[in-house]
Amino acid sequence: MTQASEQTRLDRLYADLESYDLKPLWPIATELMPLEPKPRTVPWLWRWKALRELAERAGGLITLDRGGDRRVLSLANPGLGGLPYASSTLWGAVQFLNGGEHAGAHRHTPGAIRFVLEGDGVSTTVNGDACEMHPGDLVLTPSWTWHDHNSSSDQPMIWFDGLDLPTVNALDAIFFENYPNQILQPVEARNRSERRFPGTGLLPAGGRTRTGPGHSPLLVYRRADTDAALGALLEESGGPMASLEFTDPTSGRPVMPTMACEMHRILPGERTLPIRRVGSSVLVVYQGTGATVINGTRFEWGGGDMLVVPSWAAVDHQASEPSDLFAISDAPILQALGLDREVALDLPQEVAATFPG
Amino acid sequence: MTQASEQTRLDRLYADLESYDLKPLWPIATELMPLEPKPRTVPWLWRWKALRELAERAGGLITLDRGGDRRVLSLANPGLGGLPYASSTLWGAVQFLNGGEHAGAHRHTPGAIRFVLEGDGVSTTVNGDACEMHPGDLVLTPSWTWHDHNSSSDQPMIWFDGLDLPTVNALDAIFFENYPNQILQPVEARNRSERRFPGTGLLPAGGRTRTGPGHSPLLVYRRADTDAALGALLEESGGPMASLEFTDPTSGRPVMPTMACEMHRILPGERTLPIRRVGSSVLVVYQGTGATVINGTRFEWGGGDMLVVPSWAAVDHQASEPSDLFAISDAPILQALGLDREVALDLPQEVAATFPG
Amino acid sequence: MTQASEQTRLDRLYADLESYDLKPLWPIATELMPLEPKPRTVPWLWRWKALRELAERAGGLITLDRGGDRRVLSLANPGLGGLPYASSTLWGAVQFLNGGEHAGAHRHTPGAIRFVLEGDGVSTTVNGDACEMHPGDLVLTPSWTWHDHNSSSDQPMIWFDGLDLPTVNALDAIFFENYPNQILQPVEARNRSERRFPGTGLLPAGGRTRTGPGHSPLLVYRRADTDAALGALLEESGGPMASLEFTDPTSGRPVMPTMACEMHRILPGERTLPIRRVGSSVLVVYQGTGATVINGTRFEWGGGDMLVVPSWAAVDHQASEPSDLFAISDAPILQALGLDREVALDLPQEVAATFPG
Amino acid sequence: MTQASEQTRLDRLYADLESYDLKPLWPIATELMPLEPKPRTVPWLWRWKALRELAERAGGLITLDRGGDRRVLSLANPGLGGLPYASSTLWGAVQFLNGGEHAGAHRHTPGAIRFVLEGDGVSTTVNGDACEMHPGDLVLTPSWTWHDHNSSSDQPMIWFDGLDLPTVNALDAIFFENYPNQILQPVEARNRSERRFPGTGLLPAGGRTRTGPGHSPLLVYRRADTDAALGALLEESGGPMASLEFTDPTSGRPVMPTMACEMHRILPGERTLPIRRVGSSVLVVYQGTGATVINGTRFEWGGGDMLVVPSWAAVDHQASEPSDLFAISDAPILQALGLDREVALDLPQEVAATFPG
Repeated sequence: MTQASEQTRLDRLYADLESYDLKPLWPIATELMPLEPKPRTVPWLWRWKALRELAERAGGLITLDRGGDRRVLSLANPGLGGLPYASSTLWGAVQFLNGGEHAGAHRHTPGAIRFVLEGDGVSTTVNGDACEMHPGDLVLTPSWTWHDHNSSSDQPMIWFDGLDLPTVNALDAIFFENYPNQILQPVEARNRSERRFPGTGLLPAGGRTRTGPGHSPLLVYRRADTDAALGALLEESGGPMASLEFTDPTSGRPVMPTMACEMHRILPGERTLPIRRVGSSVLVVYQGTGATVINGTRFEWGGGDMLVVPSWAAVDHQASEPSDLFAISDAPILQALGLDREVALDLPQEVAATFPG
Repeated sequence: MTQASEQTRLDRLYADLESYDLKPLWPIATELMPLEPKPRTVPWLWRWKALRELAERAGGLITLDRGGDRRVLSLANPGLGGLPYASSTLWGAVQFLNGGEHAGAHRHTPGAIRFVLEGDGVSTTVNGDACEMHPGDLVLTPSWTWHDHNSSSDQPMIWFDGLDLPTVNALDAIFFENYPNQILQPVEARNRSERRFPGTGLLPAGGRTRTGPGHSPLLVYRRADTDAALGALLEESGGPMASLEFTDPTSGRPVMPTMACEMHRILPGERTLPIRRVGSSVLVVYQGTGATVINGTRFEWGGGDMLVVPSWAAVDHQASEPSDLFAISDAPILQALGLDREVALDLPQEVAATFPG
Repeated sequence: MTQASEQTRLDRLYADLESYDLKPLWPIATELMPLEPKPRTVPWLWRWKALRELAERAGGLITLDRGGDRRVLSLANPGLGGLPYASSTLWGAVQFLNGGEHAGAHRHTPGAIRFVLEGDGVSTTVNGDACEMHPGDLVLTPSWTWHDHNSSSDQPMIWFDGLDLPTVNALDAIFFENYPNQILQPVEARNRSERRFPGTGLLPAGGRTRTGPGHSPLLVYRRADTDAALGALLEESGGPMASLEFTDPTSGRPVMPTMACEMHRILPGERTLPIRRVGSSVLVVYQGTGATVINGTRFEWGGGDMLVVPSWAAVDHQASEPSDLFAISDAPILQALGLDREVALDLPQEVAATFPG
Repeated sequence: MTQASEQTRLDRLYADLESYDLKPLWPIATELMPLEPKPRTVPWLWRWKALRELAERAGGLITLDRGGDRRVLSLANPGLGGLPYASSTLWGAVQFLNGGEHAGAHRHTPGAIRFVLEGDGVSTTVNGDACEMHPGDLVLTPSWTWHDHNSSSDQPMIWFDGLDLPTVNALDAIFFENYPNQILQPVEARNRSERRFPGTGLLPAGGRTRTGPGHSPLLVYRRADTDAALGALLEESGGPMASLEFTDPTSGRPVMPTMACEMHRILPGERTLPIRRVGSSVLVVYQGTGATVINGTRFEWGGGDMLVVPSWAAVDHQASEPSDLFAISDAPILQALGLDREVALDLPQEVAATFPG
């Protein structure tokens, strides 16, 4: 066979494959299976000043009607080609509720967490339990739980929304339902879940009900408790950094099977040594100032700023004042599937750029 | 064969079996396998006044020497033929430590809990962590952890000791070791375990380390937290009784694989409906007065009294003032082996006797 | 505010949001969160005749060089815009190895299964264990295990490749490595994993080693065993359909944390009642003829045909002769994340179309 | 205080404690908590010849009447003071069923295994599933399952009975019930459980039903499979000893939460190095001849002999021809409670005695 005819036969094969909905692996093997993760997600930062200002403008222009409506601005990672996702697996957003407003009840299979940044006087009803929200509180609206948000204040509230939506979408597993016949659920109790799990290691007798994957029955984690816990952990470890995970008190597992929530307190000092982890995260600066280096780019941050760390990126932190960083991540998924991997790097990473470029 | 010769042959068979270390099942089948549990453990009550007075007398007469020494009076259930056990599976006792005394370090495979009844100024060091003890606190000295008790007070302390000793003995699994070369362990930290588990559902990140059977890494549960938790549970349930279990905060499981600890708060009112449960328990009245009916016998109790409930006994409670009852049980064993069973009876049990008879 | 100026302000808001990498949720909420899954994956079928013929043509034109090279034709679902994926979560493909060829060793975090369709004389070495492959056998090359394929025959072999690649990619968790310095691994043993798990429920003593997510240590499931097992299950159930899952013998769990493998035997008869399930699957007809209706479209199939079932599609089957269908699915992921859902429909689905249209 | 008066006060204290059902710990501490297990169970051996002959004599003299009746000779360990137990945690016995006899249906919370030694033509019905029994087969009658034994032969059968009875008794958890109204259960199927679990790692789809503690749904393990498996394991390991555990195919866990079953094949050769393990076991020689040294005493054995190994005893084996030893143990209990411990000794143990002395 001549070389020319071989090329002809090859061309014909490729054409026939394409017409038959088949793809040859060999031309794309390296791209399909890179030596290490090549996320389209890029490291990025959104400043609180802009988020705050844009959310407030939306608050003046957009009204909330029935059911599904939410006044939400989602972090759209520039690497993801216009998708409204913070990373390939996580949704991050700011939600703005005007004083006196109500965002009606619905439920969906993606699970959500709310981390309050500003304002007061709002409660989120989750399956009948009205959970009051104050700055620094973490409130869960887990997969397939009815939830609505209600302000009894004359001030707006802004909170961070974190969802596992991109993953649930990638799995073709999204279901959504508006609350039947009425906009808000009846309130059966106020802050009930907190009364049922009232202290460290103190469970209602017979209260271990979680056997399979599930979410925490405790729906609220208060700022005062988080603050005291970080203080205790720092006292115990000697610092300069303490990290706590918000967990299901009946199992010690992440609050949801798809998403972990953590809070990190960093004291002023040296840059931490960098680590790489499979899986992405979104950081929300609750208070403090400092800088994070991701894959050689330096991001300076202050209160309310939001920051995306892609999978397998090298990351280190440095605080210039005592700082609290809230974080969501997809770690439970990677662990459940045996895909988690983490390395601590021996040397500081070089800083080659600052953000924005 | 004549009847006589058959009896002769039978007698010879029984004699041969006996001489060959075999037992025929048929004559003892009903006794071996009764229709329901026939515990040798009997319901019993020890009064605080007597326990207190005898412990104090022992405090004046018995000195603590090296290592294994403990000034302990164990509840010896009258049904168990002189064994120093509260029930067939549980050890219960009062331990008395004079002001300024030290009970040296040792470890053993039976796990122990300490529930403080009176006194202050003692700390128990558990694997280097000095845990302060105050009335109403629960302190764990789990299986094979080094522990010693140290008073820096001028007053004695009395606490309740609960152990899984009868079960570990039945399994021929007891190991014991005195601390090498010196009487007391070095103290590495004070109340460290409490700082590492500083709030409901708040774990040190990466802190889920318990995979197999194990004990809680939190070693102390404070009275103030227990009290507040019972209040919250009662508020949530509407009463008249709230029950909490002390659990491992990293797993939601019992504090030990062999023993569960609970606290019950009963408000004055009607007798509860009786229940039967496989497995025994020891109740220690922390505060309040009331009565418990066990298999038809009524036991009146007040603060400090101790009470044994045998397996499968019908039990109901009635408080005459708000009462807190601490309890240990063997429930985790029965659950692990698939032998747990519980029934709630429809009707109150008749009271046929009062204790003491 | 006039309506015009409101629109102007709205336009300006949308422009500012876009320039700041934010997306308003309200215009896209319904699309983001549909009432039920709207997969881009479409039901599709590839015929064995075409697969076989194209694979053989590739066998004559494409040579295998070093390491990563594989002569693989992947099923490219027409709904996925040119991606080489059978469904949104699963990779399906045919692999063709000429007689005497070797496909060199590498490893990757995506896990793979091989199901042999035609040919003989090949063995796949998995971490040193050379696993012989015969038609109808299932061979595992789990996540991050070294594997190479070696033919000692003069005939080609064709097998089905199933991978969790789309999901591992969506999680930015792909790692890949070629075997160092040499093309093939040393063979330490032949069919070793089968000798270590030699019968139902018969484990090497001390052989329960799987605690976290992991893969089966048994790497091969033989056709003769599958065939006998399906016969036994049919005898037990009375038919007309039996389904078995290939599992890890040390845990009873799926062969991999990301992918389940099943074999279904359907006897000739009525159409089964349809079911919907969250999660997708790829079916490979091992033998027999029949038809499957997916969301109202009828797909007739015969030996070697491959068929994709999208998430939440209604599916029923009907065999015209005794048929064995091998299947891979993403069910373990959906279960681990609490997103599994299944409904059995009461009525047969109407057939509105046949494939190809 | 004079010494005399101190002794008087001490005597009075001891008398008061005794009259108040309290025991001072200090005089008995060392006995209660020995440095290592001091089992009352002694190493012992029963010869098949005697067991066989006595069982046959019982077969001629004892008739089986209603329900609970069983013609059983239990191994009564001479260390246990007349209790009908092989060890402190295990019941071991021979059961003899004459040709054509029926031992009626009952159930009890203690779980039992049957290991057939001689005879044929018997089936044991377990919850409606008639399981045929042949020499070398292991048949389970787990906790609270109805079971009866039925001979359709003209020959007697003898099998080994192993139960967790001593432990279930120590936990006061024994329930027993005769089958209502009739002596035998209706037979719903024959050998059904084997058809439902028809091959290594091959489960009926959707067949993972065991979540809590439970027993294997597979009720029979056939001698031919055990034999082949031991051969495969020996081929894999290279010998001189292979050990397999009979497990629940849906979980890889022991057949019961309270009892493990194993089979060991030992080839002729050197004495194995001794090990100590917490927990006791009963060995039944299925075939072969050899000797076992337990705590320095040598026990020679042949086919059908039964042997008790106490907790923490040093044990080694030596076969003089290829030998199969079936074993039951309490290992699952010790593991569930975190009390398992094992050491391999470096040196052979000295043989100081032979059995019988």
